[in-house]
Amino acid sequence: MRRSMMVLALGLAAGSACAQSNEPLLLRGMGSFHVGGRVIEITGQPVKEVVFTPGGVPAKMDPNGKYQVEQMYVQYFLPQNRRGKLPLLLWHGGGLTGVTYETKPDGGGGWLTYFIRKGWDTYISDAVERGRAGWTNTLKGDPLFLPVGDPWERFRIGPPGSWNEDKAKRASYPGVQFPIEAYAQFMKQAVPRWLTTDEQIVAAYIELVDKVCPCVVLVHSQSGSFGYKVLEARPEKVKALVAVEPTLGGDRNKVDAIKGTPILVLYGDNAKDHPRWSKIRQGGVDYAAVLKSAGGNIDVVDLPDVGIKGNSHMVMMDKNSDTVADVIQKWLVGKGLAD
Amino acid sequence: MRRSMMVLALGLAAGSACAQSNEPLLLRGMGSFHVGGRVIEITGQPVKEVVFTPGGVPAKMDPNGKYQVEQMYVQYFLPQNRRGKLPLLLWHGGGLTGVTYETKPDGGGGWLTYFIRKGWDTYISDAVERGRAGWTNTLKGDPLFLPVGDPWERFRIGPPGSWNEDKAKRASYPGVQFPIEAYAQFMKQAVPRWLTTDEQIVAAYIELVDKVCPCVVLVHSQSGSFGYKVLEARPEKVKALVAVEPTLGGDRNKVDAIKGTPILVLYGDNAKDHPRWSKIRQGGVDYAAVLKSAGGNIDVVDLPDVGIKGNSHMVMMDKNSDTVADVIQKWLVGKGLAD
Repeated sequence: MRRSMMVLALGLAAGSACAQSNEPLLLRGMGSFHVGGRVIEITGQPVKEVVFTPGGVPAKMDPNGKYQVEQMYVQYFLPQNRRGKLPLLLWHGGGLTGVTYETKPDGGGGWLTYFIRKGWDTYISDAVERGRAGWTNTLKGDPLFLPVGDPWERFRIGPPGSWNEDKAKRASYPGVQFPIEAYAQFMKQAVPRWLTTDEQIVAAYIELVDKVCPCVVLVHSQSGSFGYKVLEARPEKVKALVAVEPTLGGDRNKVDAIKGTPILVLYGDNAKDHPRWSKIRQGGVDYAAVLKSAGGNIDVVDLPDVGIKGNSHMVMMDKNSDTVADVIQKWLVGKGLAD
Repeated sequence: MRRSMMVLALGLAAGSACAQSNEPLLLRGMGSFHVGGRVIEITGQPVKEVVFTPGGVPAKMDPNGKYQVEQMYVQYFLPQNRRGKLPLLLWHGGGLTGVTYETKPDGGGGWLTYFIRKGWDTYISDAVERGRAGWTNTLKGDPLFLPVGDPWERFRIGPPGSWNEDKAKRASYPGVQFPIEAYAQFMKQAVPRWLTTDEQIVAAYIELVDKVCPCVVLVHSQSGSFGYKVLEARPEKVKALVAVEPTLGGDRNKVDAIKGTPILVLYGDNAKDHPRWSKIRQGGVDYAAVLKSAGGNIDVVDLPDVGIKGNSHMVMMDKNSDTVADVIQKWLVGKGLAD
């Protein structure tokens, strides 16, 4: 009963995937900026002479002094025909950057152009120490690098044990929507990640929210945790939270603070049965129950339960990404946040 | 005499700086991709258990296996009203990313939107190991990090000895066009750079050129060297090279290969007298003479000599960046590469 109501509410027709329009994009503006971070001081290091380009003229480099650290990069696109009532912020997951939402690995249009076409002022960020945010050797611990096979199973493109370096022997979930022919292109998007920088990342996101919100925040995977933390810190600024395959929910002790903000949580296919994802998903479902019992406004949607099958963890790169975006768009329209 | 002819040829009116139009940008497409790189193998490392998010569900991480390394990131914008006859590729300098050409540190429109508005299919890249290209710990040597004061003098915002941590005591060149009030925002754009990766960077740029050219390549600072190397490797693909404050010229033994490609070299203000830049500039001037005597087609323009004063090394971020872009645009139109 509850499931069929959700199908009705979302107005879904299973298998209604259709490619994005080829109509020109009309922007009233686009641009980028960095936000957040701080300046720290390094002392006691020797001055070096550095040849920046082989064969070039040497320059003196004094490594002592002050350094800019822990800032974040943001790029935005403002459609001429604005229909989203607030800015939409797209936050990427771990080991990745804002590229997550750009062109899909198979060359298809991603969620960035999808939401611009729907009339949203869309802001994509590279979190602290990722991509164009830059990084410094002042962060604690060592960064993590992902072997090319690692996300195949962890992101549920194939089931546990399915990765094989030989493409012909590499199994995927039946009907998986991830463009497996473009997996190598996807892995080129990977960047190192530290496991010690959550606090700095959240601080920079809060500065971003203070700068451009009230807004809608859409998070994925690792940034699920950041989305909840920022919502808890700025419940009056985050007017809706869309959490796509979040790896964590919010703080159960802070549900009262955020119960006025509508939240949509989406999980793809095979999450319920996957040895790791079943725990992650259950954590999210349990958190949602706590929030709901406190009067919160949270919808948890397992995509296969509403007829959308085969989604990997990288929902926005899957072949049916527009169909999933339609679910989000309709939910936002339903909340009065877009026409 | 030669100087006045150049002024005439460029059709310049000194001080004609005007902000970019506020008219909407009409794009027939936009997107991004990664290009180049290779897959390498790591062996003999222990398997780790990693908690990706504090409080999250642990995952096994086997660091052995194959890694994607040395790829490059590219983002492109395709105007509906195309007037550039070929794609225009904007390559950034050392310690920076493609952000160089986006919104200027003071919030003004940068060269990306300038050239889109002029009708160029514009491609901005993050070179190997910079920004959204990603990086791995398999690169040789250590990356270099720039203290916040370092570019102030090296990029000729102020003369040697002018940097001071106290803003009130920080001197700049008289009439400098760099938006000194936004220097801290500029420093947030800095990313680490290795001094060992020229070969990998050039390899990725050649792959990019093979993918999207024939084209016009515009380079800045460190990428001057890359521009010449790629032109020497693909003279039939690079139909014009614009070198903005390049730190190096081309290979004097390869001038015959590239003499069919028109080249414009620009230097900003105070380059002739600066202890380091005078050598860099003289190297470029001497190289141009060698290329010219071999029948090459190269114009060297010192901006102050054509009435454009006060430019720092970061010409595209200076307040008069549109005026300098006009010089480039008119030169390209003069070469028959745009309407």
